[in-house]
Amino acid sequence: MDTILRIDMGADGGPQTKTEPVGDYAGMGGRGLTSAIVSKEVPPLCHPLGADNKLVIAPGLLSGTTAAMSGRISVGCKSPLTGGIKESNAGGQASQVLARLGYAAIVLEGKPKDSNLYKVLINKDGVKIEADNSLCMLGNYDTVDKMKAQYGDKINCISIGPAGEMKLGAASVAVTDMEKRPTRHAGRGGVGAVMGAKGVKVFVLDDTGCKMRPPKDPEKFKEANKTWVAGLRKHAVTGEGLPAYGTNVLTNVINEAGGYPTKNFMWGNFDNCSKISGETQAETEEARGGKGSATHGCHRGCIIRCSGTYYDKDGHYLTKQPEYETVWAHGGNCGIDDLDAIARLDRLDDDFGLDTIETGATIAVAMEAGLAEFGDAQAAINLVKEIGQGTPLGRVLGSGAEVTGRVFGVERIPTVKGQAMPAYDPRGIQGIGVTYATSTMGADHTAGYAVATNILGVGGTVDPLSPEGQIELSRNLQIATAAIDATGMCLFIAFAVLDQPETFQALIDMINAFYGLELAADDVTALGKNILSAERDFNQRAGFTSKQDRLPAFFTEEELPPHNITFKVTDKELDEVFNW
Amino acid sequence: MDTILRIDMGADGGPQTKTEPVGDYAGMGGRGLTSAIVSKEVPPLCHPLGADNKLVIAPGLLSGTTAAMSGRISVGCKSPLTGGIKESNAGGQASQVLARLGYAAIVLEGKPKDSNLYKVLINKDGVKIEADNSLCMLGNYDTVDKMKAQYGDKINCISIGPAGEMKLGAASVAVTDMEKRPTRHAGRGGVGAVMGAKGVKVFVLDDTGCKMRPPKDPEKFKEANKTWVAGLRKHAVTGEGLPAYGTNVLTNVINEAGGYPTKNFMWGNFDNCSKISGETQAETEEARGGKGSATHGCHRGCIIRCSGTYYDKDGHYLTKQPEYETVWAHGGNCGIDDLDAIARLDRLDDDFGLDTIETGATIAVAMEAGLAEFGDAQAAINLVKEIGQGTPLGRVLGSGAEVTGRVFGVERIPTVKGQAMPAYDPRGIQGIGVTYATSTMGADHTAGYAVATNILGVGGTVDPLSPEGQIELSRNLQIATAAIDATGMCLFIAFAVLDQPETFQALIDMINAFYGLELAADDVTALGKNILSAERDFNQRAGFTSKQDRLPAFFTEEELPPHNITFKVTDKELDEVFNW
Repeated sequence: MDTILRIDMGADGGPQTKTEPVGDYAGMGGRGLTSAIVSKEVPPLCHPLGADNKLVIAPGLLSGTTAAMSGRISVGCKSPLTGGIKESNAGGQASQVLARLGYAAIVLEGKPKDSNLYKVLINKDGVKIEADNSLCMLGNYDTVDKMKAQYGDKINCISIGPAGEMKLGAASVAVTDMEKRPTRHAGRGGVGAVMGAKGVKVFVLDDTGCKMRPPKDPEKFKEANKTWVAGLRKHAVTGEGLPAYGTNVLTNVINEAGGYPTKNFMWGNFDNCSKISGETQAETEEARGGKGSATHGCHRGCIIRCSGTYYDKDGHYLTKQPEYETVWAHGGNCGIDDLDAIARLDRLDDDFGLDTIETGATIAVAMEAGLAEFGDAQAAINLVKEIGQGTPLGRVLGSGAEVTGRVFGVERIPTVKGQAMPAYDPRGIQGIGVTYATSTMGADHTAGYAVATNILGVGGTVDPLSPEGQIELSRNLQIATAAIDATGMCLFIAFAVLDQPETFQALIDMINAFYGLELAADDVTALGKNILSAERDFNQRAGFTSKQDRLPAFFTEEELPPHNITFKVTDKELDEVFNW
Repeated sequence: MDTILRIDMGADGGPQTKTEPVGDYAGMGGRGLTSAIVSKEVPPLCHPLGADNKLVIAPGLLSGTTAAMSGRISVGCKSPLTGGIKESNAGGQASQVLARLGYAAIVLEGKPKDSNLYKVLINKDGVKIEADNSLCMLGNYDTVDKMKAQYGDKINCISIGPAGEMKLGAASVAVTDMEKRPTRHAGRGGVGAVMGAKGVKVFVLDDTGCKMRPPKDPEKFKEANKTWVAGLRKHAVTGEGLPAYGTNVLTNVINEAGGYPTKNFMWGNFDNCSKISGETQAETEEARGGKGSATHGCHRGCIIRCSGTYYDKDGHYLTKQPEYETVWAHGGNCGIDDLDAIARLDRLDDDFGLDTIETGATIAVAMEAGLAEFGDAQAAINLVKEIGQGTPLGRVLGSGAEVTGRVFGVERIPTVKGQAMPAYDPRGIQGIGVTYATSTMGADHTAGYAVATNILGVGGTVDPLSPEGQIELSRNLQIATAAIDATGMCLFIAFAVLDQPETFQALIDMINAFYGLELAADDVTALGKNILSAERDFNQRAGFTSKQDRLPAFFTEEELPPHNITFKVTDKELDEVFNW
């Protein structure tokens, strides 16, 4: 994993590849590497769909090793949705496979000189790029099936659907899971649109003949990994809640806390939420698919196993177990309480290559605009189908909540830096509001998951309804998250890492044993700060100021039931988040 | 004109009006007053369509007097198109009438609590507001006809069309001309959307029984006005070119200079431009409407008379004589060389209440996106009709060039701060590029018309193809323009004012005689600087930095034929414009 693969899509005579040593980027991985490359190499004022933007795909520092949970892959670029820097990461198999193939990153550069659609084949023998216009406007499912038919069942794919080809702001990059289905997505910020603008439909990855990456100190590494796994298994969230119900275990919890954004952020809880909760979902899945069908990993080496399978009424595969964010976005946020409809929407999103959060938030804005009634599941399905068809309306919706709000004259648009908010209302859970407002990524719960401490009692307790303590909480979480995002580790490890010092130490021990380093906790903090600083620097050069580190005005003006509370953290306080 | 009329559209129980003395705003007019009120009273981060935005309509300092050319009315707000401060001004009758009615400004505030559409009746007896939902989605022409039928032929109107009601980013505010037709528009920046968001369809103004505003020193005023008129009549542009051919006299001039943006800014001249030039247009109008039909004023007191009437092939009124910018936007910029089609598009824009510049630029972007072929006039008409119908596609197009580019994945979008560029390519005419980039208003030729000096030899000469001297030129013009926009004077006076010191002095003498002041030239400069500073301050508080004072990258990367030149003014130089 000491090689960067650069593909110049704009070269005369067609795409050109070259490999080069990681060089100055040595020691960086995942978000650390994508943000370093984007910050250094992409002109901040360039057009996100133009020749000067780059799409960087990077496994984490521990990806491709035996370290448990190390399967996240980062996708970075200048975002077509926010206009700022973007890193969006996904689970699935690609991170492990790409790392074993020896690549620290793939960098897509330049602008195609023709309108061909390309596939990029990467195996132990090297890289091949071929035009394949038979893939045009195929969904991710058909694309992967076609690649499997051509290249065998052992491959994994990184692909875009029609949304990416249409260069829409909500377009995701899909990654195949353990069942070789395109269900794991680098969803946020329109990274799929940038891949589409580069003319690449799919990366086909085959690690046949590649070995696990070897640690410098195998014994120490093995030992640390053991402690690591034990720590994750011991924690209630990663050892019990997530494996049993998946991420959707949160629906009841967030709803009870009064922070569950309902009908485009009008209410803080949803009357019918029990119909779409993780508990109901697990029950449904087990009834249709058999006991235990709800729990498995999305990548080799996952021991949390929050993933699952959603079957239709006839017991046929419909989609992977929809995540909490997806169930909320298409569910409570649209007033929809029909799990089957939500699963259908999840499948459509995955197939078209759409961020489920942005898409759900957009449908809710469209409902506020009067394009459909809140609660009308069939109308929501029809609207999402419009995106896949690329109708004018579909293109608007596929451009995300902010564009949709502008086109339809809606004032209440729950976005920051142009990116839609996820499944936690910043009034009912004030800490996450600080993260939404200040994150370099736009509204993003994963950038600093204050919900953990505000609601779940992980990493201490901070009152969710008070502004006090939220700045420090979000700051520390944003720093820690940036570092974690560099390792390739699934963010869910954070629950155990925050609560159990020995589990945090085990992670550091693994990195040290693998790379022959002697990092301490402070070095991890420094890594996180460095990543955030590079991202903030890019955004400032792109024209962002503290004025973009704000929530939309309605969060400070409209009281959210049931607590009847507004967002209370002041602008002055928000400006303190990055003063460390 | 010492009263401000405030209308709170969000008051309990329906709209409430109150009048108050101008107070702290005394001595301000036009853009000076709208920008002062917006900058002081509107929270810069508010939603442009929300309760906190205000729509300010203000005649100029000399409006309502006998001063020639004093008929411009300013419309200000936070712009839905740019997100920054906006002042857009229009000719027509409203400025003179409103000034005579005694109002320094109308300020629309708050957010309606119901979905009624209101009309506001203003005459010498006061103000009446009535809901009138029979006006819903009427075009400006029908709206005005209906008001005339109800309130008599002597009224003038300020109204919005369907675009404003739909709150679209390209929506204009229409003002009736001397023939009581809604042909003069405060077009830029989506001011019509803000009026629509306030729920006001039309202001009906009746100045029956009102007198001309009396100067403090009638004799001096009369004398200065005489010198003023003589100066305007003497200058070649205002005394010959504009009266003979209207603004479209520029088509051949700009085309020959190689600065005529053709087919979405791909070329600097248009092969078929002679078919749509001012000369051809005047010939056509005279052939169909009779000798001299091309020359009259848009408001009482106009002596330049650049306005005209466009008749269809059967000699029936089709629209007012389309302006140069309109002929370009729907003509050369879309590759269209059919004057009748362009006139039809102008009529549709006026009726729907759309900025012709933004709309034409948008159609060209849509053509680049493949929605129609460049040059296909019928397709362009069909696309504009979609806007009026409010289809999803129409709403996208009505949201302007930038949104349209985003929705359809187009990279080459000729906008600054979200507002489309007018009819001068900043590569072929580098001075106007400086104005586009740095104006507080987004891309706007009227904010500092460097074309005058770059191409027309007015106010000196500065080589249009060289970056040298452009910063100082644009700076001085932006300062002078801001001051002129405060007076209510038509910007076309600038040609004579720039070239003839005695005409500039006559303008100052008129202001002094009218208000009993002793202003000198330096005071006018100070006024312009103050206005610009207030606007820049608002924009900074709204999150704008120097990074938004830039042209899109393609202007510095793609060479423009025939001169094969890029925009050469550096970022560092651009940042010097407001260092005075």
